[in-house]
Amino acid sequence: MAPKYAPSLRGRLPPMTLLLETIFISMFAFFVEYEDPAVIRKIPLTDIYAEFQDVNAMVLLGFGFLATFLVRYSFSGAGFTLLVTSLAVQWAILLDGFLFTFHRGKIRIGMNSLATANLCAASALISMGAVLGKTNPAHLIIMALLEVTGFMANRWILQTFLKVQPIDAIMMLHVFGAYFGLMMSWVLYRSGLEPRHEKEATDRRTGLFATMGALFLWMFWPSFNSVLIGQTHLERKLQAISSTYLSLATSTVAAFFVSVVTSPRGKINMIHIQNASLAGGVAVGVAVSAVDVPWVAMVIGLSAGVVSTLGFRYLKPHLRVVFKCHDTCGVLSVHGMPGILGWAAYFLIQASRLPDITAVLGFTIYHLCTLLLTLGLSLGLGALTGILIKWNIWRPPQDRMCFDDQAYWEFPHLAVHK
Amino acid sequence: MAPKYAPSLRGRLPPMTLLLETIFISMFAFFVEYEDPAVIRKIPLTDIYAEFQDVNAMVLLGFGFLATFLVRYSFSGAGFTLLVTSLAVQWAILLDGFLFTFHRGKIRIGMNSLATANLCAASALISMGAVLGKTNPAHLIIMALLEVTGFMANRWILQTFLKVQPIDAIMMLHVFGAYFGLMMSWVLYRSGLEPRHEKEATDRRTGLFATMGALFLWMFWPSFNSVLIGQTHLERKLQAISSTYLSLATSTVAAFFVSVVTSPRGKINMIHIQNASLAGGVAVGVAVSAVDVPWVAMVIGLSAGVVSTLGFRYLKPHLRVVFKCHDTCGVLSVHGMPGILGWAAYFLIQASRLPDITAVLGFTIYHLCTLLLTLGLSLGLGALTGILIKWNIWRPPQDRMCFDDQAYWEFPHLAVHK
Amino acid sequence: MAPKYAPSLRGRLPPMTLLLETIFISMFAFFVEYEDPAVIRKIPLTDIYAEFQDVNAMVLLGFGFLATFLVRYSFSGAGFTLLVTSLAVQWAILLDGFLFTFHRGKIRIGMNSLATANLCAASALISMGAVLGKTNPAHLIIMALLEVTGFMANRWILQTFLKVQPIDAIMMLHVFGAYFGLMMSWVLYRSGLEPRHEKEATDRRTGLFATMGALFLWMFWPSFNSVLIGQTHLERKLQAISSTYLSLATSTVAAFFVSVVTSPRGKINMIHIQNASLAGGVAVGVAVSAVDVPWVAMVIGLSAGVVSTLGFRYLKPHLRVVFKCHDTCGVLSVHGMPGILGWAAYFLIQASRLPDITAVLGFTIYHLCTLLLTLGLSLGLGALTGILIKWNIWRPPQDRMCFDDQAYWEFPHLAVHK
Repeated sequence: MAPKYAPSLRGRLPPMTLLLETIFISMFAFFVEYEDPAVIRKIPLTDIYAEFQDVNAMVLLGFGFLATFLVRYSFSGAGFTLLVTSLAVQWAILLDGFLFTFHRGKIRIGMNSLATANLCAASALISMGAVLGKTNPAHLIIMALLEVTGFMANRWILQTFLKVQPIDAIMMLHVFGAYFGLMMSWVLYRSGLEPRHEKEATDRRTGLFATMGALFLWMFWPSFNSVLIGQTHLERKLQAISSTYLSLATSTVAAFFVSVVTSPRGKINMIHIQNASLAGGVAVGVAVSAVDVPWVAMVIGLSAGVVSTLGFRYLKPHLRVVFKCHDTCGVLSVHGMPGILGWAAYFLIQASRLPDITAVLGFTIYHLCTLLLTLGLSLGLGALTGILIKWNIWRPPQDRMCFDDQAYWEFPHLAVHK
Repeated sequence: MAPKYAPSLRGRLPPMTLLLETIFISMFAFFVEYEDPAVIRKIPLTDIYAEFQDVNAMVLLGFGFLATFLVRYSFSGAGFTLLVTSLAVQWAILLDGFLFTFHRGKIRIGMNSLATANLCAASALISMGAVLGKTNPAHLIIMALLEVTGFMANRWILQTFLKVQPIDAIMMLHVFGAYFGLMMSWVLYRSGLEPRHEKEATDRRTGLFATMGALFLWMFWPSFNSVLIGQTHLERKLQAISSTYLSLATSTVAAFFVSVVTSPRGKINMIHIQNASLAGGVAVGVAVSAVDVPWVAMVIGLSAGVVSTLGFRYLKPHLRVVFKCHDTCGVLSVHGMPGILGWAAYFLIQASRLPDITAVLGFTIYHLCTLLLTLGLSLGLGALTGILIKWNIWRPPQDRMCFDDQAYWEFPHLAVHK
Repeated sequence: MAPKYAPSLRGRLPPMTLLLETIFISMFAFFVEYEDPAVIRKIPLTDIYAEFQDVNAMVLLGFGFLATFLVRYSFSGAGFTLLVTSLAVQWAILLDGFLFTFHRGKIRIGMNSLATANLCAASALISMGAVLGKTNPAHLIIMALLEVTGFMANRWILQTFLKVQPIDAIMMLHVFGAYFGLMMSWVLYRSGLEPRHEKEATDRRTGLFATMGALFLWMFWPSFNSVLIGQTHLERKLQAISSTYLSLATSTVAAFFVSVVTSPRGKINMIHIQNASLAGGVAVGVAVSAVDVPWVAMVIGLSAGVVSTLGFRYLKPHLRVVFKCHDTCGVLSVHGMPGILGWAAYFLIQASRLPDITAVLGFTIYHLCTLLLTLGLSLGLGALTGILIKWNIWRPPQDRMCFDDQAYWEFPHLAVHK
C-alpha cells in the first residue's frame, strides 16, 4: 500500500523553488515598482479589478478544479495548478515588463500587468493539461517557465515584426499552449502506460468537482476575452463580452448534441460537456477583434462545440494509438482545434471585408504567417522542453505511480490532521 | 446493472437542439445587433458587468449545484441546468427584444439584455426544480421554452395593461416559476414513485455540493435583486443590496431556529438550511421597490425563513400525499410561499403610505390583480406544459430510472476517461 | 449507531437565536437607516460593491469550506459558519455604528458598513477555527458575539487613544481572532480528546472541499486587504491589491517548499498548502499601509509561508502536548504568527524611514503598545469567554460526539429528502 518507492521530492523541488524565488525577488527588487500615482489617478487601474478577479478565479478554481477529474489525482490537479500559477505569474510579470513596458530601467506594474501575467499563466496551464499525471511538480515548473518564455517571445515577435494587435497576439495563448503541451507529451510518450492506465478514470465525485471547475471557466470566459480591452474601447469590450457569452451558450448545446449523437446508446458523456462547452470561448477569443455581430459568434461557438466533441470522441483515442501522443485532459480538442477554428473565423471575417483579391491574398499570407510562426515556435519549444524533462535527473514517477496522488502527497487513507 | 432499457436520447434531443439552434441563430442574424457605440459611451453598459457575472454565477453554480443534492442524480442536476440555461437565455434575449426593445426592425443587445435573459432563465430553472429527476432533457427544454414564453407574456401584460414597474414585473419570476413548476408536476404525477423512491435521497457528498450551490445563491442574491436597478437610482440600488443582505441573514437564523424546534430530536436538517436560508432573498426581491428601511427587510427575511422551513417540514409531505403533487426541490417552500409573502409585504408597506381608505381599496384590487394574473397564467401554462410533456412521444424515463444519472449519462461505475 | 445521547439543541439554540433576533431587529428599527441619498450620489457607495462581494465570498465559501476538512464534520463546518456569520454581521453593524458613525441618534449604513461588518465576522470565524468540533452552535454564537464586541472595543481603543489608522486597527483582526480563539481553546481543553480523536481526520473528499475553500480565500484576499481603502486613495488601493497578490504567490511557493523539506518521505501535506498559502495574505494585510514596493511584499509572503508551514509541522503538535491547547484548524499558524510577522514588518519598514534614533525609540514603544494591547485584550476576553462557555448549562457535546455531524444534524446514513 505504502508507495515507499515513489521518488522523494526532497532533492528536486525545494532547491529549485528556493533558487527561483531568490532570483525572482532579486529581480523584482531591482526592476519592479508599482505604477506611478499620477498615472493611476488619470486612468484608474483598479477599473479592471473585478475582471482581473474573474480571470484569477478561472486560473485557480477553473483550470485547477477541471484538473481534478482523475479519480486518484485530484490533490495534484488542484495543488500543482496553484504552485505552477504562483511561479508562472511572477516570471510572466518580469518577462512582460522587460519585453513590452521597460522604461528607464524600471517595470511599472498595475492591474494590467497582473491580468496579462494571469493570461500567460493560463497558457502554461493548458500545456500542463496534456502531460497531467505523467510528470512530477519539478517537471511542471520547468515546463511552465519555458512555456511562458516561449509564449512571451511569440507575442513579441508577432507584435514587433508582424504588427499583430496586442490582444490578437495574446489570444494565441490557446494555440501556443495546446501544441506546446502536445509536442511535449509526444516526446514523453511511455509505452508502459498503454493500453490504458487503470487509474486514468473519473468517478461521480471527481466528475462533479471537475464540472464545478468547468462552470467557473464557462462563467468567467467573457472576462478572459475582454479584460485586456481598455475602457476607451467600451463598444469593443461589450462586443467581446456578449460574443463570448453567446458563443459559450451555443457550444454547450453543440456539446450535448454531438455527445448524444455519437454515443452508441444515446447517452451524454460528462467529459464532453465539461470540455466542449468551453470550446466556444476559445474560438471566439482567438477571433475576438473581428467578431462584431451576435450571430457570427453563435455560429463560431456552435462549430467549435461540434469540432471539440468530435475530437474527444474520435481523435483523442487515435492520437494515442496512431501518433503515440497521450493527451490527458484533451487539450487538442478544447484549445488546439477550437483555437485554429477561431483563427480561421478571424480570417474569413476580415477577408470578406477587403476590397479586392490582391488585398485578400496579401492578408492570407500575412495571417497564415501568424499561425505558422506560433505553431512552429510552440512545437519546437515543446519538443525541446520534452527532451529536457525526459532527462532522468528529474526523477519522473514510475509508470505505476502515474495518475496517483500518493506519489507526491502525505496520504494515509484517512490522513490524521496535524 | 446496465441500464439497457433506459430510452436512448438519440431520437429526441439531437434533432430538437439542432432545430432550435438553427432557428435561434437565424433570428439573431435577422434581428439582433450589438448596442450602438454612441449609446454605450453615454451610459456605459459594462457598468453592470460585475453584477451580471454574479447573476451568471447564481444561475450556473447556484441553481446548478443546489440541484446536485440527489445522491445519484448530481450530473443531471448540474448538467441539465447548463443545457437549459444555454437555450433559455438565447430564447429570452429574442423574446425580451421583440416585446420590450424592438426598434426599427432590430433588437440591440447589451449587458442589460444578458442580465434580463439570465433572470428569465432563472425562472425556468425554478420550474425545473419541481420536476427534477422525473423528466428527461427533452422535457426540460420544452418546459424551459414554454415557461420563458409565458413569463415574458406575463411581464408584458403586467407592464402594458397594469402599468407595473419593470423591476416589480420581473421579480414575479419566483411566483411564476414556482407555480408553473408545481402545476406541471401535479399533471405529471406518477403513483409509481410512491411512497418514496429509494434514490430520492441525499448524502454527505452531494449534501456538501448542494450547500456550495446554496451559498453561491446566498452570496450573490443582492446582485440578483439589484442588477436591473440603474446607476441613475443609486440609492434604490444600495437599498436593494443592503435589504437583501440583511434579509438573508435573518432568514438564515430563522431556518436554523425552526429546523431545530420542529425536529423531534432537536437536530438541524441540512436541506432546510440550504433552502430556507434563501427565502429571505426571494421575499425581499418581490418587495424590493417598497422596502426602504433595514428593519423591515429583516422582519421580511425572518418571516420568510420561518414560513419556508415550516413548508419543508410539514407542507411538502402533505402536498405529496394529499394533493398528489411531488415537488423534488421544494420550490413551493423556497420560491412559491416566500414570493407571495414578499408580495404581501409590498402591499402592506405601500398601503400604509396611502392617504385614505379609498386609495387603499383601489390599491388592494390593483395589487391583487397582479398576483392573480401571474398565478392564473403560470398555473394554466404549467398545466398545458404538463399535458404536452406527458405525451409518450418524448419517452419519459421509467419509474425505476427516475432520479438516476445512469439513464442519461455514459456511466460505468468508474468511467474511463477518453 | 443512532446518537441518541447527543444533547438536543432544542432547549438552547432556538430561544437564544429568537431572543437575539428580537433584540437586533428592535435596535435596527430604532437606530439604523440607509445612507442619505445625497451622500450616495456624491460618493457612490456601490463603487466597492464588487469588492464587498469578494469579501462576502471569502467569509461564506472561503472560511466555510476551509472548515469542511474534517471527515465527519463538514456540514457543521460550512453550516455553522453561515449561522455565526449571519448573527455576527448584524451585531457588528450595530456596534460599528454606535462606536464609529453614530450621528444624531442614527446609524446610517452603506456598502462600507456591510464590508466592515464582514471583516469583523471574519475575526470571529478565525476564533471559531481554534475550537471547531469541540463546541456546539450555542457556544459558537456566544463566542462570536463576545469576540466581535471585544474586537470592536479594541479597534475603538486603538483608534481613539493611540490614534492608529482605521485600516491598521481593523487589520489586527487576524491577531485578535487567533489569540482569542487559542486562549478559549486552552480554557476548554479536554483530556478526553487525547491523544487524538479518531474522527479528527481528513480524506480525499473533504480535503478537496477544503482546498476549494482555501482557493476562494486565496483569490479574494487582495479584496480583503483593500476593500476599506477608499477610491480617493487609488494608488494605496492598487498597492494593497498587488502586494497581497504577490505575497500570496510567494507564500504558496514557500508552503510547498517547506512542506516537502520537513517531510521524512519528501511528500507534500495538503493541510499545509491549504493554510500556509494564505499566510502571505495575513502578513501583508497587517502591514498593508506600510508596504509600497513589490519585493518587500514578496519577502513578507515568503517568510510568512515558511513560518506558517513550520508552525503546522512542529508547533501545533507541541502546543497540544506541552501547553494543553488544542487548535483544530491551526489558527496560530495561519493567523496568529503571520499576523505578528506582519506587525513586525510594518515596524521595520516604518522605523527605517524615521530620521533619528529618538523617533525610532518613540515609534517602537508606540507600536509595541498597539500589539500588547490587542494581545492583552484578546487573551483576557478569550479566557473569559472560555470560562463562560465551560458552564455545563450550554450542554457541550460529549467527547465521543466531538468532530461529528451526527450530534447536530438529522443524518441517517443516506438521509431521505423531505
